[in-house]
Amino acid sequence: MSTAAPQTGKLIGVGVGPGDPELMTLKALRALREADVIAHFAKAGNTSHSRASAEQHLRPGIVELPLAYPVTTELPKCSAAYRDALGNFYDRAAAEVARHLEAGRVVAVICEGDPLFYGSYMHLHARLAARFRSEIVAGVTGMSGCWSAAGMPIAQGDDVFTVLPATLPEGELTRRLSDADAAVVMKVGRHLPKLRRALERSGRLPRALYVERGTLADEKMMPLAAKHDDDAPYFAVVLVPGWQERPGDKP
Amino acid sequence: MSTAAPQTGKLIGVGVGPGDPELMTLKALRALREADVIAHFAKAGNTSHSRASAEQHLRPGIVELPLAYPVTTELPKCSAAYRDALGNFYDRAAAEVARHLEAGRVVAVICEGDPLFYGSYMHLHARLAARFRSEIVAGVTGMSGCWSAAGMPIAQGDDVFTVLPATLPEGELTRRLSDADAAVVMKVGRHLPKLRRALERSGRLPRALYVERGTLADEKMMPLAAKHDDDAPYFAVVLVPGWQERPGDKP
Repeated sequence: MSTAAPQTGKLIGVGVGPGDPELMTLKALRALREADVIAHFAKAGNTSHSRASAEQHLRPGIVELPLAYPVTTELPKCSAAYRDALGNFYDRAAAEVARHLEAGRVVAVICEGDPLFYGSYMHLHARLAARFRSEIVAGVTGMSGCWSAAGMPIAQGDDVFTVLPATLPEGELTRRLSDADAAVVMKVGRHLPKLRRALERSGRLPRALYVERGTLADEKMMPLAAKHDDDAPYFAVVLVPGWQERPGDKP
Repeated sequence: MSTAAPQTGKLIGVGVGPGDPELMTLKALRALREADVIAHFAKAGNTSHSRASAEQHLRPGIVELPLAYPVTTELPKCSAAYRDALGNFYDRAAAEVARHLEAGRVVAVICEGDPLFYGSYMHLHARLAARFRSEIVAGVTGMSGCWSAAGMPIAQGDDVFTVLPATLPEGELTRRLSDADAAVVMKVGRHLPKLRRALERSGRLPRALYVERGTLADEKMMPLAAKHDDDAPYFAVVLVPGWQERPGDKP
């Protein structure tokens, strides 16, 4: 989108979809084939989810640039120290990507879901898109993957749809769930007991669906009301479908 | 997902993405190749947008089942007559699809964007998924296509993101825009003057982006504040990006 000296490379944020490698787009596939370098984020010591989705499409011998999040479990998430650690990490990651771009290479940063929807790629884009040519390849979001795997119509007609982080305080979660026709709650993890109470108080619990690892072979989904423990990974989501009054429909 | 007599066919809701044919997934491509019948919705007399996205991937000689919305321009949208006309249309469309399924055929209903996110396919799914085998192929949504084409990060971190129909009353639009970090407003059309006032009152106008036909060759996008008329098609969208305070980021 931006103009830059023609000798520089190009930054591409490539959405690889929700997990199932078949939910990658043709455009993502082309970007992977044309790139000189593939960059991917992962927690230090873990394999990258986006790399797993893209693996079967990587060119043999492609240069890979893993960008490993610093281990920050000892820092409170709202602390300045945590924000600084992450900010410094993104600065260093952007500098590493920039070296390839300055050498004229095409760098594809592969991202779970969609690159500009809650994705780590955005931190690189914010640092680099003004200096280098850039392009975004939209992807199927994780939440689309989840409601599709569940066969659950999520929103229709004039429904108001909202995406909420489970990190919000209980009162705010309750208010926002009550105020929307349809919702997706992300980052469930240790917030599940609080989220359950907010869903109960907003009257949404009976239709809430809990999903882990949607679209992957080991996906787990169940009505949240039927889940009898509060164990949930960070990436679990809860879906609250809208379209409750279906005018003209007799399902 | 559902179980049904083995001799019946299969219903597949296939998301073909936001418009650019390259934003179709590999799974959608396979569904188009394996289907016996391709069904698509369009206004009577118009070509189907989803068919245009999928056209280059259709098998020669594939059976097509166009499902033409009734012309309802003479009916007020909130009237019982309008709802009945649409409800009857979806009943007839479901019956036509069911005849193919009963004959053991695989019917792929191709949908712009994602099938279960504000898509017409949902009306068929609600009528048929309990009787026949069904599957959903998630797609890149129209809104992902728009913010990606614009290179505009839409939501990050603990942002609350919401999707609003421009049909809402002005006061409610204003309240909901003020209450969200990031928003997408759909169905803009003749509601643009009202939406502009709601964006102004909620302080969101300076960062609102207007997009028509995102990802297509003739896409149009501009800051809404720089758009000097109120002409907008029904499918135009307005994007309001979140991620306003970028902790740790120095973009």
